[in-house]
Amino acid sequence: MNQARFHDHERNGGAGGPGPSRSWNSALWQSLLPLGRDDQTGGYRRYSFTAADAACRDWFLRAAEQRGLRAECDQNANLWAWWDPPPGGGASPPDRTGAIVTGSHLDSVPDGGAFDGPLGVVSAFAAIDLLRERGQVPGRPVGVVAFAEEEGARFGLACLGSRLLAGLVAADTARALTDSAGTTLADAMAGAGFDPDLIGPDPDRVRGIAAFIELHIEQGSALAGMSAAVGVAKSIWPHGRWRIDFAGRADHAGTTRLADRRDPMLPYAATVLAARTAAAECGALATFGKVLAEPGGSNAICSAVRCWLDARAPAEETLSRLVSQVLAVAGRSAAEHGVRMTSRRESFTPVVDFDPDLRARVRAALAARGIDAPVLPTGAGHDAGVLAARLPTAMLFVRNPSGVSHSPQEHADPQDCAAGVAALAAVLEELTCR
Amino acid sequence: MNQARFHDHERNGGAGGPGPSRSWNSALWQSLLPLGRDDQTGGYRRYSFTAADAACRDWFLRAAEQRGLRAECDQNANLWAWWDPPPGGGASPPDRTGAIVTGSHLDSVPDGGAFDGPLGVVSAFAAIDLLRERGQVPGRPVGVVAFAEEEGARFGLACLGSRLLAGLVAADTARALTDSAGTTLADAMAGAGFDPDLIGPDPDRVRGIAAFIELHIEQGSALAGMSAAVGVAKSIWPHGRWRIDFAGRADHAGTTRLADRRDPMLPYAATVLAARTAAAECGALATFGKVLAEPGGSNAICSAVRCWLDARAPAEETLSRLVSQVLAVAGRSAAEHGVRMTSRRESFTPVVDFDPDLRARVRAALAARGIDAPVLPTGAGHDAGVLAARLPTAMLFVRNPSGVSHSPQEHADPQDCAAGVAALAAVLEELTCR
Repeated sequence: MNQARFHDHERNGGAGGPGPSRSWNSALWQSLLPLGRDDQTGGYRRYSFTAADAACRDWFLRAAEQRGLRAECDQNANLWAWWDPPPGGGASPPDRTGAIVTGSHLDSVPDGGAFDGPLGVVSAFAAIDLLRERGQVPGRPVGVVAFAEEEGARFGLACLGSRLLAGLVAADTARALTDSAGTTLADAMAGAGFDPDLIGPDPDRVRGIAAFIELHIEQGSALAGMSAAVGVAKSIWPHGRWRIDFAGRADHAGTTRLADRRDPMLPYAATVLAARTAAAECGALATFGKVLAEPGGSNAICSAVRCWLDARAPAEETLSRLVSQVLAVAGRSAAEHGVRMTSRRESFTPVVDFDPDLRARVRAALAARGIDAPVLPTGAGHDAGVLAARLPTAMLFVRNPSGVSHSPQEHADPQDCAAGVAALAAVLEELTCR
Repeated sequence: MNQARFHDHERNGGAGGPGPSRSWNSALWQSLLPLGRDDQTGGYRRYSFTAADAACRDWFLRAAEQRGLRAECDQNANLWAWWDPPPGGGASPPDRTGAIVTGSHLDSVPDGGAFDGPLGVVSAFAAIDLLRERGQVPGRPVGVVAFAEEEGARFGLACLGSRLLAGLVAADTARALTDSAGTTLADAMAGAGFDPDLIGPDPDRVRGIAAFIELHIEQGSALAGMSAAVGVAKSIWPHGRWRIDFAGRADHAGTTRLADRRDPMLPYAATVLAARTAAAECGALATFGKVLAEPGGSNAICSAVRCWLDARAPAEETLSRLVSQVLAVAGRSAAEHGVRMTSRRESFTPVVDFDPDLRARVRAALAARGIDAPVLPTGAGHDAGVLAARLPTAMLFVRNPSGVSHSPQEHADPQDCAAGVAALAAVLEELTCR
């Protein structure tokens, strides 16, 4: 579906013609599109350490090889490709220490879109291509990264690869994470040929990075409203994921009197509605996108309902108030129905304010090339948000006309993708080549 | 779990000692217990045309063989074992035409209990054993039956085997039913070695049956309240299953404003709560035990929520009013959230009043042996309810102390199972041996 739209645009825009679309590496993008896509939904199912994930990793290594970039996989299954400065060459003033890294992730949510993650990785390679075409030479190492399990779609903890790298989650905790089939991260990694004993903080690698710039499709339509192809991130709302379990009693749907039931579906339903009301009151966001009814027979009362609350707010106190309200309703409603409610926070990311100095440099580099990139906050978590705790990070957003994301309908126009590559190349040039 | 409790009771009650437990065929019951049981939940997952189903079918054929009963599988995958009258022997008055059939089913709901279905099949074999021990000879064929897909757990249509036998569902409709993985009944049957082209009405077989007596664990605790081990069914509430689909729009949980969402989880939640309220108002039952959130990512708004309403009421008008109310709320709430709601009735069984003459004969046979069996209505569907449209049927219920059913906690005491066998033997003797 996206592919079809993309082709149309290319045909109309003319990929080989003049204009910004020249810098959008269409062949590289096309080669990634089929990997892990579900034929029926048109959405992506690129879950970590599966066959789809392995195909994406092979794609990354091929892209690096084709460019003569030095590729490696770190101890946390994050992939890196390095454009090194020439030996003894390039003007490298003494203050320019540490690498400039760009990239994003290749994994997806269930039935995700083509752009969320991959656009940042493809644009990273394309920006390097563009700089080389212009004869630029880096004065310090330029890295392209694809972080592992950014979406948390398989093991429930978003940005797992960057959290491990930065020492923001304990290795033992990570190894014990399980997917919906009960497979641990450790077993899944081992099964895919990675050594789970090695995961954990990688401080030398972190120290070697001077800045991380993540390009990402906008997950919202603010840029469309401002007629801007590219924006710069200001901050990420604090956000987290709470798992709520309602444990009732399985029973026959046709013979159990209402008064005798301990039906966990009822407090679940009350909690879903309460979360929406509380989010509206707080000016925040609350979503139940995943629910598992057990055992899930249509003529039996459930024994348990397990669900996940995704909550985000402009400030941490607001988020905390929102979650407290939702859990209070869950507990109260569970008690009314003789159901046991338990909850635990599965992940939490405090508010992230991206480095103001780096942002100013990024904007100045763009402005110098006539690119007016508005500054935006976002409710979405990113590896750049996680790494902001350890080093200066910045984000570039590419316009998403409908604002739809985490969906097969997610889309960015090729012209805007090309503008994103041009912007990223400008930033890399500013930070590495001057 | 059930097995452990069962052992305790046996040890205390003394299976080899005097009293009614002598007629409870413990070895036969024990040989069925491990088949299709999930080690983790202790519940059964005996879904039609799976390996667990094949194991249960083998068990049935072995039980028939051990007893020298003539076994056969009919065109609709229902299993039969026949105790034929001796050639030219037995007093067979001219008015005694047609077989007397007893039995139930071996398939289960997800994580079902050990008794729902199997108790009727084991008791049927055990009752024949008891009559033979007493030197009884049948004056007409006595059949033991295990109907296919009674729970509808795999293909969504309860009592499929008996409905096909009786011509109460079209063969084409049945063949096209799909399980949750999209496999059709036709393909599943073919994969398990059955010929799906042969399914359909079997009027000769139906005409050859004078009466069907189904013994079943009570799915409720009415007998426990009356201190009776065995009861007789009066009627089955009208009941049905409605599938409701809410189609919204997948989107990012962290970046989509509440006002821009088309979240199908919200009307689903409103519908669950409305169903409970409506059921309470109508003196009826409504249950949502199965719900599928698609695609089911915790950080994305669902594209769709699919759910099943199980509804039952004492009268058809009440049921109809209940379902109308629930669907009205579903439609209204969906519209409020920009979500498309569609629904369809997947199954419906009108009120069943079991044959009053047969019931009177059953009760008289029991009373003659000092068994006072109360008469009960039930909200649960059964093959005996389906077949009541074609021939006289009756049901015996065995006490269920907690009333819990469709759950691993479902339980009947061995003494009560033995009382059930004694009652069933008395009824078979009355209808076939006198």
